[in-house]
Amino acid sequence: MVIDCHGHYTTAPRELEAYRQQQIESLKGSSHLSTGATLKITDDQIRESLENAQLKLQRERGIDLTIFSPRAVGMGHHIGNANTSIEWSRVCNDLIHRICQLYPDNFVGVCQLPQSPGVAPGSCIGELKRCVEELGFVGCNLNPDPSGGHWSDPPLTDPWWYPLYEAIVELNVPAMVHVSGSCNRNFHATGAHYMNADTTAFMQFLTADLFKDFPSLKFIIPHGGGAVPYHWGRYRGIAQDLKRPPLPQHLLHNVFFDTCVYHQPGIDLLTKVIPIDNILFATEMVGAVKGVDPETGHYFDDTKRYIQAVSWLREEDRHKIYEGNARKVFSRLNQKLLGRRP
Amino acid sequence: MVIDCHGHYTTAPRELEAYRQQQIESLKGSSHLSTGATLKITDDQIRESLENAQLKLQRERGIDLTIFSPRAVGMGHHIGNANTSIEWSRVCNDLIHRICQLYPDNFVGVCQLPQSPGVAPGSCIGELKRCVEELGFVGCNLNPDPSGGHWSDPPLTDPWWYPLYEAIVELNVPAMVHVSGSCNRNFHATGAHYMNADTTAFMQFLTADLFKDFPSLKFIIPHGGGAVPYHWGRYRGIAQDLKRPPLPQHLLHNVFFDTCVYHQPGIDLLTKVIPIDNILFATEMVGAVKGVDPETGHYFDDTKRYIQAVSWLREEDRHKIYEGNARKVFSRLNQKLLGRRP
Repeated sequence: MVIDCHGHYTTAPRELEAYRQQQIESLKGSSHLSTGATLKITDDQIRESLENAQLKLQRERGIDLTIFSPRAVGMGHHIGNANTSIEWSRVCNDLIHRICQLYPDNFVGVCQLPQSPGVAPGSCIGELKRCVEELGFVGCNLNPDPSGGHWSDPPLTDPWWYPLYEAIVELNVPAMVHVSGSCNRNFHATGAHYMNADTTAFMQFLTADLFKDFPSLKFIIPHGGGAVPYHWGRYRGIAQDLKRPPLPQHLLHNVFFDTCVYHQPGIDLLTKVIPIDNILFATEMVGAVKGVDPETGHYFDDTKRYIQAVSWLREEDRHKIYEGNARKVFSRLNQKLLGRRP
Repeated sequence: MVIDCHGHYTTAPRELEAYRQQQIESLKGSSHLSTGATLKITDDQIRESLENAQLKLQRERGIDLTIFSPRAVGMGHHIGNANTSIEWSRVCNDLIHRICQLYPDNFVGVCQLPQSPGVAPGSCIGELKRCVEELGFVGCNLNPDPSGGHWSDPPLTDPWWYPLYEAIVELNVPAMVHVSGSCNRNFHATGAHYMNADTTAFMQFLTADLFKDFPSLKFIIPHGGGAVPYHWGRYRGIAQDLKRPPLPQHLLHNVFFDTCVYHQPGIDLLTKVIPIDNILFATEMVGAVKGVDPETGHYFDDTKRYIQAVSWLREEDRHKIYEGNARKVFSRLNQKLLGRRP
């Protein structure tokens, strides 16, 4: 079985964006937004938005299941306040839930958290619990910079985050470290802010002892780990200079990388440098890069092709990357899948 | 000949740091710093600071010449104001000049610019000209984020920077994109801020038309280009989605990468993905990673070993990486070297 651990609902009907714009407009004036009234998306619209996009690509590429969450750039935690974020997160997570009900074999949910800059992350626990316990979600996306490119909140290793981590650990779900859009014009969202956040989070983990406090807390660093695997020697060296333990024992029980790296040499490096047990298959389709690579004639984000082409991977390695590691990291997904098969 | 295009004076006598601390202290109170009086470093101290460090490593590794600039983390553009920065830059650049006079065969200077957050970069032109025209420097380090991790100034492609670029082009020197320390606790300097800045700068160049306005402007992106080569497929794909020209014609006449990547798989990827004409040899010794890699028994930052070990590089490729490309990018260095040899 092939599990894509990183997919966002990037193809939602335009009603969702219209709703969001209405919500943002309502922040400016005194008008009050009546949420329930304004968003109407039918099941048929949802089906239509997926059939020719994610579902078609799943079939074409031989992907069985996508771990699916709201559009990352759309989370926009920096917009409005905590209430804005809670309202918007519920709407987006509910849509994911409907998708998972319509296509229970194809999608399993991961939630957006109602983060807001300067607001203690414990405020997200309610929505996290709702998504996991009531909607059957198996993980969450955690934004290390809810300010959207200003990095004004404490690092991920600060006790500021601990109440949320306690809930995450108690619920037994992993968190994917995933920023949203950037409102700092220095940072292009998918070309710079995403990569930077991945790299930054890893380095925060390296310099702290977070996993002594939370030995079972699990993070997935997406986009192939940002700059980290390419500079693995640098990180091993910095860790050594700082008298940290070697990275495998210091971080790799808790930190995992996905395979959203869109060319063969990148996947070659990732699978050479990072232990196989720490790599989870992912495409992030339909996402940051939508086109076909003229050099190969295949979609840039068809990462399964690259993994198939790595000559030194054994079948058991590919099994771990495609399925085994995801089942371990997303324990609740594994429970679901075990329950499914008689 | 082997030219290391990226070295900083990280081993300066402690008097330099004491001077800087005194300067910073003077910002707090009303006391006025009398600069010239407080910094005294003898030629012997300079020799001592280099003989067992950079010079020893040059000899051991077979490096002929290092393009040498003040310590990057020490630039601290976010500290104090424009005057602080001018005073400090002059002191640091003058030290580099003394080194180049003491060891004219081993070092050629690159200057720190007196940037300051919120201050138009044109203010750096005077010091740049002094360093190039009077001290014989061949390039400059340009900080894309003088705020030190808050990214509060405009992107490198904004006209804000154009007056400085005009001077850089007129003087015919390249700029290495290099941040300094981070005063944002989210970003570890050498582990996150450096990488992020490299990635960010590349993406700024990708989305703009800076090199239409400045066809001969040349940037070196250090640390192997941050996350860029590892994600080269992503960047090719984003460029294509954004209807930008293919990266080689869009950026690679103007943007170069150094080889500060501290393990074999990283250098393998870099030399596979980036055209050889765009790669400049560098170590950044004695820098971010000072230790010996227990897996190889050699210094992490002994990047020449990795380049030697890349099986598909021909001798002419290595010649370009070690010397030829540096002579092209640092035109003034080439002039110097041509002048040297009878």
